[in-house]
Amino acid sequence: MTRKIGETLHDISENPSIEADVIVVGAGFAGITAARELKRAGKSVAMLEARSRLGGRSLSRPIGDGKVVELGCEFHGQSDSVSARTARSVGIGSHKVYDDGYKLIDDGGRIARWKGAIPKVSPAALVDFGQAALRIERMRREVPQEAPWQAPHAVQWDSETMWSWTQRNIRTKAGRSLMRLLIESGMAASPAEVSVLHVLNYSNGTGGFRAMTTVTGGTLENRFVGGSHGLALRLAQSVTAETYVGAAVRRINHFSDHVRVSGSGFEAVGRRVVVAVPVPLSGRIEYDPVLPAYRDQLTQRLTFGSAIKYLALYDEPFWRAAGLTGMAISHTSPVRAVLDGSPPDGSPGVLTAFVTGPAAHAVGRLSEGKRRELLLREFVRYFGPRAGKPYDIIEQNWMAEPYTRGCYHAYAPPGLYTEYGPALKEPIGRIHWAGAESVPVEFGSMSGAIYSGQRVATEIIACDADDGPGHLTAGPGKPATSRSVL
Amino acid sequence: MTRKIGETLHDISENPSIEADVIVVGAGFAGITAARELKRAGKSVAMLEARSRLGGRSLSRPIGDGKVVELGCEFHGQSDSVSARTARSVGIGSHKVYDDGYKLIDDGGRIARWKGAIPKVSPAALVDFGQAALRIERMRREVPQEAPWQAPHAVQWDSETMWSWTQRNIRTKAGRSLMRLLIESGMAASPAEVSVLHVLNYSNGTGGFRAMTTVTGGTLENRFVGGSHGLALRLAQSVTAETYVGAAVRRINHFSDHVRVSGSGFEAVGRRVVVAVPVPLSGRIEYDPVLPAYRDQLTQRLTFGSAIKYLALYDEPFWRAAGLTGMAISHTSPVRAVLDGSPPDGSPGVLTAFVTGPAAHAVGRLSEGKRRELLLREFVRYFGPRAGKPYDIIEQNWMAEPYTRGCYHAYAPPGLYTEYGPALKEPIGRIHWAGAESVPVEFGSMSGAIYSGQRVATEIIACDADDGPGHLTAGPGKPATSRSVL
Repeated sequence: MTRKIGETLHDISENPSIEADVIVVGAGFAGITAARELKRAGKSVAMLEARSRLGGRSLSRPIGDGKVVELGCEFHGQSDSVSARTARSVGIGSHKVYDDGYKLIDDGGRIARWKGAIPKVSPAALVDFGQAALRIERMRREVPQEAPWQAPHAVQWDSETMWSWTQRNIRTKAGRSLMRLLIESGMAASPAEVSVLHVLNYSNGTGGFRAMTTVTGGTLENRFVGGSHGLALRLAQSVTAETYVGAAVRRINHFSDHVRVSGSGFEAVGRRVVVAVPVPLSGRIEYDPVLPAYRDQLTQRLTFGSAIKYLALYDEPFWRAAGLTGMAISHTSPVRAVLDGSPPDGSPGVLTAFVTGPAAHAVGRLSEGKRRELLLREFVRYFGPRAGKPYDIIEQNWMAEPYTRGCYHAYAPPGLYTEYGPALKEPIGRIHWAGAESVPVEFGSMSGAIYSGQRVATEIIACDADDGPGHLTAGPGKPATSRSVL
Repeated sequence: MTRKIGETLHDISENPSIEADVIVVGAGFAGITAARELKRAGKSVAMLEARSRLGGRSLSRPIGDGKVVELGCEFHGQSDSVSARTARSVGIGSHKVYDDGYKLIDDGGRIARWKGAIPKVSPAALVDFGQAALRIERMRREVPQEAPWQAPHAVQWDSETMWSWTQRNIRTKAGRSLMRLLIESGMAASPAEVSVLHVLNYSNGTGGFRAMTTVTGGTLENRFVGGSHGLALRLAQSVTAETYVGAAVRRINHFSDHVRVSGSGFEAVGRRVVVAVPVPLSGRIEYDPVLPAYRDQLTQRLTFGSAIKYLALYDEPFWRAAGLTGMAISHTSPVRAVLDGSPPDGSPGVLTAFVTGPAAHAVGRLSEGKRRELLLREFVRYFGPRAGKPYDIIEQNWMAEPYTRGCYHAYAPPGLYTEYGPALKEPIGRIHWAGAESVPVEFGSMSGAIYSGQRVATEIIACDADDGPGHLTAGPGKPATSRSVL
């Protein structure tokens, strides 16, 4: 059930001049959590959200009977994850994703059923891939989540792509293809794009490399009752009075003792600002003084993955009767992964599909008709003719959303962690950073975002106790001109 | 000699409302060339420049007697390069960089003299590195400059970093170190950051892999008489009347038949717009409708290299009497490369130094005093005690410049060319792209920028002849909401 709280949100156009101790930019999980925690600690806060709604990358759509489908972040794994614990603290429970029966794997037209942890591949490929997966599990245990760049082999692992690592560590064609499939469906980026160190860090956040794409025992095991967007709105209830929508922040002026945060027709003045928008978008705000090179170049490098999410609605989850879980993965199709996204009572039946990595752009450039045709053709291949006749299809392209511009999350290309990692969360004077990718604990997830909100609140409370600016290792933006230094 | 044309430039604040056939954003080599060519073809143009000066990444500083030192782009190679031909067409010649004598190579304190094409290393390392360099030369010949992503092995070469390629293709420690040194000094990025395909494409632009860091016979061979900034200003003379400074563009509204380009307190309306700012900064402009995902995600990925440039001025180029060219390169020092940057008559003596790659950020975070101390200590190590006593040192940190934010140029991380390459120059409706990195012929250079200005002018003239928008493969920005597609 989505909670209607839109009525009580303030529109920034009616409140063009705001003052608070802390200005929070962005009302996703990170911003909402930061605002909650700061308010709880006695600070006055003002949260500015560009959209007309809260929740960032979480978004529900009602489908009748008080039920929703989820267009954004949806799944969580371990019951002790930050997001699950936070949900329980506000009375929101979880339910299991349907996982009873066979899963499907498509190898260019040949569709096989499989069960268990590793998709059906030849025995040789299984051994080949299995040893690589084990190696990744060993490697990731050396990577500290708070500072992946401090892993003993950080520089080496951050110097190559997952593609070249795979070429060296997996010999069979089928094993390599499986690695590509898991990275592209699990991280929405191709193995060519991501640093090995990033894969290890991201795996730590999901509870393991294989858990990244696993339902039972993995990070796809649970969903929040009422949807993750409902959780965001529930968390936001305590700061509704401090929330302003329609407030796209374009400029942050920062001084030794205050900040001025502004956009078209509004201005908010505070002692500090929390920038809780995705890192790539944080670089698009104009800062005065300009950000230090170190932070600016981080925002040039951290980049969003590529995915389009589809939800197909049927009268019932007909695949269950055929002994299928609803999960399908494909080595060759742009429709890389499908899951059963039905509500707990199984009505309606929902197939949730992801078009990810390079395929997301190829599909995104097709006409709407061609996209629908492609999706239904692949659904029919996986689940038979009934899959071709949903009563509705919903498409959500976060890459096209002006206040997100990618999904599932941002990723680190080679060299980023070891050269720029600390800048992910290091404050610049009175500018503090939060967001799912700023932590980097449980990188890119709801948990990561919530954790970052808690972290930044603690950081601000500590700074305020000192009454000083943030830890200023990078120095403020220097006058950007050449000059004699002798 | 820098040309003083500042007096004749318009300030945007005195001209807050402009109309022209084509609005050009950014007055570097690309924008200036586009404006020149468009005007020559009979279009009315208005060129908007955020700074109070023209020339983008080219910048001179007068040092008396009508001489200048160059703080930005400085060198060019082959006499048939686009920049050299363009300079000759406006009566500007070139002069040679001093290259008579021994060069120095520093291996962690041991400084050796060398001559010829490859720095002094052990015979084993020489053979090892030499075969790798030959392999790169063979590979780059397969890469078409207009479309590197169409090389026969493009996907493979774009899937790994130069670091992992080096690990596999160079066996000796000294050989690998030399590769790192050449990439970091030549491209201002670490081998861990750049795609192999990008190194090949960039090498094609410099006339060969080894030419990238070579004076005689290489891309460092020549400088423009009066400096590259002087060339930019000479080229801009024919469009001075159409140039507006102090015009930082923040927003581009684009429609089926016109564009509206605006910033704080000004607005320019035209039939088309040329965005001629660096690709990473082009993503920071607000577009309405928003750019297609494909172009936006390109701007998230293409990123600037990291470098700080130093110029040390002495009464005379004293190193020449010691038989030295003034070139020094180092395997271990943050001061990766030094060149003789003296005016043609050798007065004053100028040492030009580059701190590049990861070292640029480490050095950038030091205090001004520590930076000076580091630079002079390294100069003394390379060239003896006199090098420690320049009469002036000039520091130019393009990474800190708000309207550049990096140097020497942007680079492509793995996956970019093959997934996003065509978006570098593909117009979006009435928005056209230019810039040193948009070509990608002679990627990242003055030549590349000038070429792109010519290319975009031709493109616009052709589009106008059709009276249609640009080639719209990506489609306009879609309404950024979820929706049913059935």
